[in-house]
Amino acid sequence: MGSTQVKELGEIETPIVLTNTLNVPEAAAGVIQWTLKRPGNEEVRSVNAIVGETNDGYLNDIRGRHVTPGHAIAAIEAAREGPVQEGAVGAGTGTVAFDWKGGIGTSSRRLPKSLGGWMVGVLVQTNFGGVLQVAGVPVGQALGRYFLKTELDKANADGSVIIVLATDAPLSDRNLERLARRAFLGIARTGSPMTNGSGDYAMAFSISPDVRRTAERRAHPSPVVDLPNDGISPLFEAAVEATEEAVINSLFAAAPMDGNGHHVDALPVDEVVKLYKRARR
Amino acid sequence: MGSTQVKELGEIETPIVLTNTLNVPEAAAGVIQWTLKRPGNEEVRSVNAIVGETNDGYLNDIRGRHVTPGHAIAAIEAAREGPVQEGAVGAGTGTVAFDWKGGIGTSSRRLPKSLGGWMVGVLVQTNFGGVLQVAGVPVGQALGRYFLKTELDKANADGSVIIVLATDAPLSDRNLERLARRAFLGIARTGSPMTNGSGDYAMAFSISPDVRRTAERRAHPSPVVDLPNDGISPLFEAAVEATEEAVINSLFAAAPMDGNGHHVDALPVDEVVKLYKRARR
Amino acid sequence: MGSTQVKELGEIETPIVLTNTLNVPEAAAGVIQWTLKRPGNEEVRSVNAIVGETNDGYLNDIRGRHVTPGHAIAAIEAAREGPVQEGAVGAGTGTVAFDWKGGIGTSSRRLPKSLGGWMVGVLVQTNFGGVLQVAGVPVGQALGRYFLKTELDKANADGSVIIVLATDAPLSDRNLERLARRAFLGIARTGSPMTNGSGDYAMAFSISPDVRRTAERRAHPSPVVDLPNDGISPLFEAAVEATEEAVINSLFAAAPMDGNGHHVDALPVDEVVKLYKRARR
Amino acid sequence: MGSTQVKELGEIETPIVLTNTLNVPEAAAGVIQWTLKRPGNEEVRSVNAIVGETNDGYLNDIRGRHVTPGHAIAAIEAAREGPVQEGAVGAGTGTVAFDWKGGIGTSSRRLPKSLGGWMVGVLVQTNFGGVLQVAGVPVGQALGRYFLKTELDKANADGSVIIVLATDAPLSDRNLERLARRAFLGIARTGSPMTNGSGDYAMAFSISPDVRRTAERRAHPSPVVDLPNDGISPLFEAAVEATEEAVINSLFAAAPMDGNGHHVDALPVDEVVKLYKRARR
Repeated sequence: MGSTQVKELGEIETPIVLTNTLNVPEAAAGVIQWTLKRPGNEEVRSVNAIVGETNDGYLNDIRGRHVTPGHAIAAIEAAREGPVQEGAVGAGTGTVAFDWKGGIGTSSRRLPKSLGGWMVGVLVQTNFGGVLQVAGVPVGQALGRYFLKTELDKANADGSVIIVLATDAPLSDRNLERLARRAFLGIARTGSPMTNGSGDYAMAFSISPDVRRTAERRAHPSPVVDLPNDGISPLFEAAVEATEEAVINSLFAAAPMDGNGHHVDALPVDEVVKLYKRARR
Repeated sequence: MGSTQVKELGEIETPIVLTNTLNVPEAAAGVIQWTLKRPGNEEVRSVNAIVGETNDGYLNDIRGRHVTPGHAIAAIEAAREGPVQEGAVGAGTGTVAFDWKGGIGTSSRRLPKSLGGWMVGVLVQTNFGGVLQVAGVPVGQALGRYFLKTELDKANADGSVIIVLATDAPLSDRNLERLARRAFLGIARTGSPMTNGSGDYAMAFSISPDVRRTAERRAHPSPVVDLPNDGISPLFEAAVEATEEAVINSLFAAAPMDGNGHHVDALPVDEVVKLYKRARR
Repeated sequence: MGSTQVKELGEIETPIVLTNTLNVPEAAAGVIQWTLKRPGNEEVRSVNAIVGETNDGYLNDIRGRHVTPGHAIAAIEAAREGPVQEGAVGAGTGTVAFDWKGGIGTSSRRLPKSLGGWMVGVLVQTNFGGVLQVAGVPVGQALGRYFLKTELDKANADGSVIIVLATDAPLSDRNLERLARRAFLGIARTGSPMTNGSGDYAMAFSISPDVRRTAERRAHPSPVVDLPNDGISPLFEAAVEATEEAVINSLFAAAPMDGNGHHVDALPVDEVVKLYKRARR
Repeated sequence: MGSTQVKELGEIETPIVLTNTLNVPEAAAGVIQWTLKRPGNEEVRSVNAIVGETNDGYLNDIRGRHVTPGHAIAAIEAAREGPVQEGAVGAGTGTVAFDWKGGIGTSSRRLPKSLGGWMVGVLVQTNFGGVLQVAGVPVGQALGRYFLKTELDKANADGSVIIVLATDAPLSDRNLERLARRAFLGIARTGSPMTNGSGDYAMAFSISPDVRRTAERRAHPSPVVDLPNDGISPLFEAAVEATEEAVINSLFAAAPMDGNGHHVDALPVDEVVKLYKRARR
């Protein structure tokens, strides 16, 4: 929700909030309420709330629609700098990825100074199928758990991923869109074919003050800094790598979960490490 | 809200509901609640609610966020076949178009039998600026009320239109998208340049049983009927004309409105008719 | 040809050349040859030629494919500042619009200083059908010549328009795309529903040195000037108006034409003026 | 060249021809000439030639523009059923991938009968950079040859891939587009981040007679068969896998090449096999 205006105007007006498919309205209501109450927003009459979702209806009583606007507001107000919680937390509490417990994952890359020194950070909400690969090692196949065997012929093999990318590079909105598209390449490397139901979204924004839409810049033609096309390939590589790693992190950090009458295992990290070492030694 | 999945899957899952910008969440919550409760939907765990909006913050206490999920449910349940209410009703209650009272408008065209006999119906929620033209007659200029004079340099000159098109022609989703794009040509003919803030959306669907996504058709490769590209131009003309007329109808049907400390006049229909007759005699 | 890279990179590398549908390759070859020979381009190994086309096969022996790369080079080298030739010239020699002789048309708008003082110029190659409106006056209907009567049920009712927009406003590539989309609103006002075969393209570029992709700006993050979203609506209005007028100019300037065994009349300007005066007095 | 009309109309009118960046016009001219001369096309006045390209200017004297329309016609006429030539042939003669000799590669997957039994075939023209992975094994890193080390900071790190997918599944044009997008996931798995200059295109078509645009189907609303969304995920997996394998095949089949004063090694297949066996044992 909210993505089409971002594309049209190149602007993000609110915090980005993630939830489950059937509670998008409640999360959006929270974002709008919170935004209207910010000091300085007393006259604001338009808010484009950005809410991402995946469907956690296997573990979550999704039809119960338990998320409230208050939960979204609390999440926004609890947001802090520093390490990000990963695994079965927040909107990742009930998600399933590659037939194991998925969740929230995050990762980042900083480019070497010779390539600009920019940083790309990625956060994912993993809830999709495929044949899990960890750094190229066919873990899903080795552990005998993948949708080709069990799920591809069932509609509920489907699932989605939401990807949020942040960078401190001064990118135009066109290049932010291109950066976001690269995130799907990272998803591919984890073993997903982006199945039919995958409402997969990636959104990238820049935190550079050199491109920020300040009141001054919204009032007059004003200078912004633009990283040229010719310098963007290293950022693309960073986005691909960080997305791949964020997905793996979401699995490594997730505890097993029971819910809605179902049980989902955590990825057996020890076995994965063993497989990885054997392949890479 | 909901448009990106429609594009991806070519399917509409819910009634389409219109509201104001800041009550999209409440309308969507109503749509989801209503859909989950439909007989046969007891196991449904995914709903893609489609909600359109325009910003009525000039006449409406939009920050009060007065629309509830119950309003959306009531609107769905009150929907009837037959003539559609036009003017300052429903999501059109607080809208403003061309500096006069806008609202809901509707119109349709039926093609002659030699061109297929298909019907195209259009419903619009008008809330935008420009220099009003009625059937080509420069009414806005003649009556001295248009944004170039008063508003183009103010951000609040902006506004939007939501357009919903229905047809009984058996169109593919690609051709439904093309049909929807033609609606903006009808908007153009009323005098709008689709200003910056115009989050303008058009969505088209077919009611033909020959393209309906029945349970049977969702289970197996199945025949659908496809109106070929070469036969679609008359439908495009119908969509343009019906959209233009629907906008004009929204203005003709709207009563003046006071709200939020502001007053908006109705279009002076008598004067428009006079101008029209003078131009067309 | 060439439009997809422009969208991806936000850059135009060559002159924009217009021709007929079946001679796009020859025109593109000319553009490439000319570009490779420019001083300073000795090491260039990639050129994205931009060529627009409409189908003039009614008046032109289009299957004969008579345009050569040399014609394109000659056209580029003959390009001059100052008034633009209009009517049945260049790629407009064989085009037909609204059942009259179409061709090349051009028009521009300069914004008042209070709205930025920017200029928008438009050039069109008109080759499409519809019910001609001139400044809102239903000329096609009055003169009994429009496709609904004669052509809508035939595939050859189809046709296209190519629109090129230039501005001196410092627009981002996103806003140039939005500006280009508004040109179709101008087309709509002349009476076109953009029929099935209409491969209609609009491309906008900025001549502002403040956004030019100089060697310096391609090498490092560099300042560019950005006209904000909030200031762009007057440019949208200018693009709509100039496009509408450019189409009308292409018709007013075109002489009747015989070719390929067919004859196409020029628009009877005197009668149009009479109709206009009657409607607008 | 030609992709935008395919998207708009859902139709491919000509053979798809691949060449180098600067000979697109000559290849297109050949396609048009060939198409106009086909029996039954005597009255055809519009042809939308589809030509893909990558830039082989490192090994090829690309500025010499040596490809002629006759080459394209000869290639079309020499096309045969059966095994496809791979490696440094045709438009792949001068391409470079992952710093080794690239070229043409092809692969396919047939679904098990329980998933429909459909086939997906893929042909690629590989000319791009990255860190080569073969079935997940980090070959590029192991062999010390990848752009991060040598090229990412130079514009010529860029490159592209053209991907053509064919299927016998009866897919709508919307689902053919979705299938084509999945091909990029296969590219990702070979180690590409799709760098800045990558004008990467994927186009999919169906050979099913059940969706063919016959003269009959172009004349009247007619039945076509539609594979439903819910059955498409296995085809997506097939497209990802076949694309990945086609890229690897293009490298495995390519001989080393000298040209334009440069030399490019072939991928040392023996070493790759050794690395693969070590990782997968």
